[in-house]
Amino acid sequence: MKLAILGSGFISRFYADSLVAQRRKDTIVSVYSRSEVNAKKFAEDYHVPHYTTSIKECVEHKDVDAVIIGLSNDLHLESILACAAAGKHVLCTKPLGRNAEEAWQMLQAVEKANVVGGYLEDLCYTPKFLKSLASIKSGAIGEVIWAKSRETHPGPHSDWFWDKAKSGGGAMVDLGCHCIEISRNFIGKNIRPVEVMCWADTRVHPIDAEDNAIGLVKYENGAIGQFEVSWSFRGGMDLRDEVMGTEGTIWLNNFLRTGFEMFTSGKGGDYIAEKAESNTGWLFPVGDEVNELGYNHMFTDMFDAIDKKREPAETFYDGYIVNAIIDAAYTSAKTKKWEPVQIKDWRGKFEAKANKQYTDFDENFYLIKEEVLPSGEKKIIIKNKKTGSIEIR
Amino acid sequence: MKLAILGSGFISRFYADSLVAQRRKDTIVSVYSRSEVNAKKFAEDYHVPHYTTSIKECVEHKDVDAVIIGLSNDLHLESILACAAAGKHVLCTKPLGRNAEEAWQMLQAVEKANVVGGYLEDLCYTPKFLKSLASIKSGAIGEVIWAKSRETHPGPHSDWFWDKAKSGGGAMVDLGCHCIEISRNFIGKNIRPVEVMCWADTRVHPIDAEDNAIGLVKYENGAIGQFEVSWSFRGGMDLRDEVMGTEGTIWLNNFLRTGFEMFTSGKGGDYIAEKAESNTGWLFPVGDEVNELGYNHMFTDMFDAIDKKREPAETFYDGYIVNAIIDAAYTSAKTKKWEPVQIKDWRGKFEAKANKQYTDFDENFYLIKEEVLPSGEKKIIIKNKKTGSIEIR
Amino acid sequence: MKLAILGSGFISRFYADSLVAQRRKDTIVSVYSRSEVNAKKFAEDYHVPHYTTSIKECVEHKDVDAVIIGLSNDLHLESILACAAAGKHVLCTKPLGRNAEEAWQMLQAVEKANVVGGYLEDLCYTPKFLKSLASIKSGAIGEVIWAKSRETHPGPHSDWFWDKAKSGGGAMVDLGCHCIEISRNFIGKNIRPVEVMCWADTRVHPIDAEDNAIGLVKYENGAIGQFEVSWSFRGGMDLRDEVMGTEGTIWLNNFLRTGFEMFTSGKGGDYIAEKAESNTGWLFPVGDEVNELGYNHMFTDMFDAIDKKREPAETFYDGYIVNAIIDAAYTSAKTKKWEPVQIKDWRGKFEAKANKQYTDFDENFYLIKEEVLPSGEKKIIIKNKKTGSIEIR
Amino acid sequence: MKLAILGSGFISRFYADSLVAQRRKDTIVSVYSRSEVNAKKFAEDYHVPHYTTSIKECVEHKDVDAVIIGLSNDLHLESILACAAAGKHVLCTKPLGRNAEEAWQMLQAVEKANVVGGYLEDLCYTPKFLKSLASIKSGAIGEVIWAKSRETHPGPHSDWFWDKAKSGGGAMVDLGCHCIEISRNFIGKNIRPVEVMCWADTRVHPIDAEDNAIGLVKYENGAIGQFEVSWSFRGGMDLRDEVMGTEGTIWLNNFLRTGFEMFTSGKGGDYIAEKAESNTGWLFPVGDEVNELGYNHMFTDMFDAIDKKREPAETFYDGYIVNAIIDAAYTSAKTKKWEPVQIKDWRGKFEAKANKQYTDFDENFYLIKEEVLPSGEKKIIIKNKKTGSIEIR
Repeated sequence: MKLAILGSGFISRFYADSLVAQRRKDTIVSVYSRSEVNAKKFAEDYHVPHYTTSIKECVEHKDVDAVIIGLSNDLHLESILACAAAGKHVLCTKPLGRNAEEAWQMLQAVEKANVVGGYLEDLCYTPKFLKSLASIKSGAIGEVIWAKSRETHPGPHSDWFWDKAKSGGGAMVDLGCHCIEISRNFIGKNIRPVEVMCWADTRVHPIDAEDNAIGLVKYENGAIGQFEVSWSFRGGMDLRDEVMGTEGTIWLNNFLRTGFEMFTSGKGGDYIAEKAESNTGWLFPVGDEVNELGYNHMFTDMFDAIDKKREPAETFYDGYIVNAIIDAAYTSAKTKKWEPVQIKDWRGKFEAKANKQYTDFDENFYLIKEEVLPSGEKKIIIKNKKTGSIEIR
Repeated sequence: MKLAILGSGFISRFYADSLVAQRRKDTIVSVYSRSEVNAKKFAEDYHVPHYTTSIKECVEHKDVDAVIIGLSNDLHLESILACAAAGKHVLCTKPLGRNAEEAWQMLQAVEKANVVGGYLEDLCYTPKFLKSLASIKSGAIGEVIWAKSRETHPGPHSDWFWDKAKSGGGAMVDLGCHCIEISRNFIGKNIRPVEVMCWADTRVHPIDAEDNAIGLVKYENGAIGQFEVSWSFRGGMDLRDEVMGTEGTIWLNNFLRTGFEMFTSGKGGDYIAEKAESNTGWLFPVGDEVNELGYNHMFTDMFDAIDKKREPAETFYDGYIVNAIIDAAYTSAKTKKWEPVQIKDWRGKFEAKANKQYTDFDENFYLIKEEVLPSGEKKIIIKNKKTGSIEIR
Repeated sequence: MKLAILGSGFISRFYADSLVAQRRKDTIVSVYSRSEVNAKKFAEDYHVPHYTTSIKECVEHKDVDAVIIGLSNDLHLESILACAAAGKHVLCTKPLGRNAEEAWQMLQAVEKANVVGGYLEDLCYTPKFLKSLASIKSGAIGEVIWAKSRETHPGPHSDWFWDKAKSGGGAMVDLGCHCIEISRNFIGKNIRPVEVMCWADTRVHPIDAEDNAIGLVKYENGAIGQFEVSWSFRGGMDLRDEVMGTEGTIWLNNFLRTGFEMFTSGKGGDYIAEKAESNTGWLFPVGDEVNELGYNHMFTDMFDAIDKKREPAETFYDGYIVNAIIDAAYTSAKTKKWEPVQIKDWRGKFEAKANKQYTDFDENFYLIKEEVLPSGEKKIIIKNKKTGSIEIR
Repeated sequence: MKLAILGSGFISRFYADSLVAQRRKDTIVSVYSRSEVNAKKFAEDYHVPHYTTSIKECVEHKDVDAVIIGLSNDLHLESILACAAAGKHVLCTKPLGRNAEEAWQMLQAVEKANVVGGYLEDLCYTPKFLKSLASIKSGAIGEVIWAKSRETHPGPHSDWFWDKAKSGGGAMVDLGCHCIEISRNFIGKNIRPVEVMCWADTRVHPIDAEDNAIGLVKYENGAIGQFEVSWSFRGGMDLRDEVMGTEGTIWLNNFLRTGFEMFTSGKGGDYIAEKAESNTGWLFPVGDEVNELGYNHMFTDMFDAIDKKREPAETFYDGYIVNAIIDAAYTSAKTKKWEPVQIKDWRGKFEAKANKQYTDFDENFYLIKEEVLPSGEKKIIIKNKKTGSIEIR
């Protein structure tokens, strides 16, 4: 695959690191930055033969098969329209839009142009996530009743994140988009998100957008997707997911506790662990960041999808649904009520229901709980199907 | 201290185990159970000289200084009234009432009788909790902006828990009372809880009460206390607390991951780890359950408080506040809106405010973020105090 | 129990903290220190009615039932002889002697005087250790084939530890004594330790004794007890045990990772976690140190043993065996060979053998391994009993 | 790079999984197996255009640039000689030889033929290992004084491992080779391993080779490399490394605790976690096994090395040194003494010394320890440079 990258900042470099990591056959052939200096520097660092300060020129470059967008949120729409116009496949960083309305336009643009619209939701491609999802789909934890995803850190790298006009919002747009799509995958993408309840507040920083938020997303089958996001967390970057199913539990820790622990007095050298808040004392590095954060598996899926003319696991439609949920969350944060998720063109299941099945104790009673006591005795708690009375056997 | 215990079931035995654990000088002199067989058995097991099937006889026993209540929730009020009538100090298990109205009557009874009303909230006495609270009070994590407490397990031991009339509710009354009081301590007991937003649902069991709930409690200074409770969690008993402060973070794991890990093929013996769902494979026991769950430190505080005529750390007033918050949570779960916490006789601080202080970069700008990039460069994000525009230096 | 304490330093204060922790009925009635100032200060801090600078006066105090020795290693023998002369029970801190010869004299003194000689090996009383030991005895992990115990930290508090004449040695005497007795309990106290192989070196400090050592103790049934000790470990105090059995595994972490994690920027307060090397960044405190380190359960066992005229779990004989193993370790560190453990008066089992039982596949073959492959196929590796050839079925 | 693979079993498939994982540009063009069925199956599964039952034919295939050997230990030498004869680069699985003599012949063969001899020591390429090594080289933990590596599991997959004639030995050859090279990297490859002390025993299985072993390798600068290996560990595959430096500590957990935890009742599906001993209860999967175990980074380094005509990080010389250490370990296990490591042609540093530097307190005293007591007082322990006496200030 021959690639163009729009953007030369933090996320674009992360993408490029992943693309050159393990002798991948895909290559970057053009890079765009509004700053010529940055475009040139990026081209040199990653051996990209062509650079430009024109999005159009980059996108229309004759060798380019697919375009990767690593720009600030306010530039996604115009870039995607340029790709669609040029008939190039387009892979866009998260969140797709600043809101659902923008995302909807992007979705329509790629569908009309008949190009692949890949949604670069890396955290839905981490190795732990992929294996968890396979386990859940195989039934290993039964029906999912709650899926929580948490991303918190001390705040983003670039100035535009902090500017609501450019970013579309604060921690909820920046981090919540990950959490929402993670929970949505675990609960089932074909289950409709129905309504959202959200708390959001600006607690620490001198900004207009929220720097802390918690939200509950209710799905049609009764499952709850929860997100916890913060730009004021202290201690590094906390990336954790938890899922409760009727038959099991999954806990993922993607960053701060991955089996790599280090103590340094600070006397030795000047090593600094990434995103850590300090460089002495106990540190918790991550081995291979681009792999652990899902970039490698994400690009493999995206390019394979384009090659094989199938949909990638994360599409622009997914990005649109996430934006629709975030929109409802912002409304709820203001109205202080559960707010409906407004979705045009729902493509999943209709009238999904929980697979709630009570266990019969016998024909007259349901089993509530069976337990072996420390004494070795067995205790059975049952409920009379008719009277509703609860008894011990 | 000479003690009576009302109740001979699971929690009363836990209390007794703690009371006899380390050659404590306090002794149990009387035990009540509605079943004579159980009362006698308990008296034998713990060398209690007197047992009875009359609450009145137990409470009024001449040697008794203080009464410990380990009965089902529906019997708390009548027991406390009996203690107050007899002029005996009374220590009541959690939750105090089935609702705030009951709790209020209990509070008034002990205050009128001028006896100590101790609220047996053991999880606010675990060694980890006590040390965390001391750290927070010393300022080690700055101002608390979010305190989450989680208690989930596969459901309670006794039948009355599952019967809403006796218990007053489901997982929220049973487990949420712990979580609420834990968060409240971390945020500050003198900060008024203002309103509650709650989701509650019956997902797995054939019961009327909720078996899963999540709630957010907003405090007057903007802090959020969060609770996560479940009677359908798989994998044992999950007891975790997390606190985010402006200067730090605290994570506590009280049960499932405490540095004790064991694998057994099951061929060896018939050892069963407590509350574990299995007795083979990887197990995570707890060393000294009565100490880790706070019982030892709780009773030490309660008896010292009575001896020294001071208030214990957890009083009936605290129990009442917790009930008031749970009441608001149930209302919110129905109305699907934030609901106010109704408190008679607020005894804490009025008009608490967050200590929000922006950091000046210079006289014209606030500092948003300062960061050292992988390249070694320093990046500073600032905000113009007048125009609000965000810049990078 | 009425107690005297010899010593007023770090370990004596730890003992006293445990003795007053949970309204224990045992009381300290006299304290000795060679410094009158320290004796008086200790007496005030712990409300001890009598203090003295004479060991004899302290030990012979009429109210004293039992004496607790918290003095430097060179003073254990004379103190124990004084207790034996006075006919008082005596509980001595670890290690018992500076070498086996001293320990043997102490053992003989208490046995001749017919008083209890309790060996204050607190790490064989931690809650996790006690529960592990019960599991192992119940057969949960099969036969123990390797038991490792590790204690490492940045070095002891008092000057006498660093002075070989007073202490008897370095990290091996100070920390190895714990590790050896822990492994010995897990393997079985009645299994004879046969020989020792040891590496010891002085790597970091300007001292004569070793500051790092690793040793293997071979027991008669083939089991290996391993110790790892260091006075130059960086990162706090690392206290971990690992046991491999034929049917299971046990991993204990007693200090650095117990489910209590804290990050502090250091801006907040001046809180310092105990034995931590820093007071900012990620810290790992312990909830209730005296309980987690076994002091509470240790004293309960010691006093109950005296009351009930039974042996405590850890006796002077155990202290003597530990010293005999350490002696062999020092010899091995010099000769660079396995060295025999010299034990006078072995009181355990003779000719212990491993319970090695091969599993028959059928009458001609032993089963080596049975495995389900990712493909679902079952693979069986067997060994011909006569020819010894290994085959796959 | 165009590749041939010799072997079609477990390890060859692992290698192939890594080679096809992330759209790598390197391709497998030929596969050899002594079984035609297996060769054909492998060729189909991995889309390999050519398969054969002749090593010679495979190695001499005109498209082949480099050969990967995934055969049993007894076939390494003949395969390498074939590669050398054909003038093809050769990458051989671990251990290089069954003993140092074999490894020496292999080393000479590739050096004479002037082809790259890459030693496929995957565990020296895990992401955590690579980052740790970089930290150590930057001085973050000071001078390494002890590096321990542990690999234990319930035994290998194929029959030939259990047959000493084919494998060259038991757990020490199979797993110890990893541990030795890991420690050697951390301590410094240019530091000469001097002598070895080893315990090895056959505790559980009906085999001639050892199924458990522990060894200490002493390096010329005083550092100790420790290995712990077992084929009878219960609980899965335990892969952990620990390093103690004068200024810090590193702890790596590569498999059993990587931040991925799962509980399943077993009711749901038939999911089986890899290498786990059970498929119910608490399971600890690994996200992306080929990446976490170092295969991806290993092949990238090997192929880049060949392309750029530089040495890979792990060469046949390294494989030879490891074999020399294992040989000394087997001798020590018999003689029960430290045994010298016999190395022909030492290519590292000569007369390496520890960077031992005592800290001066003043001109007359060394500083032993400085400590802040709970009371806030500062305590300083020093040693008189002339008299050696130890004092407190």
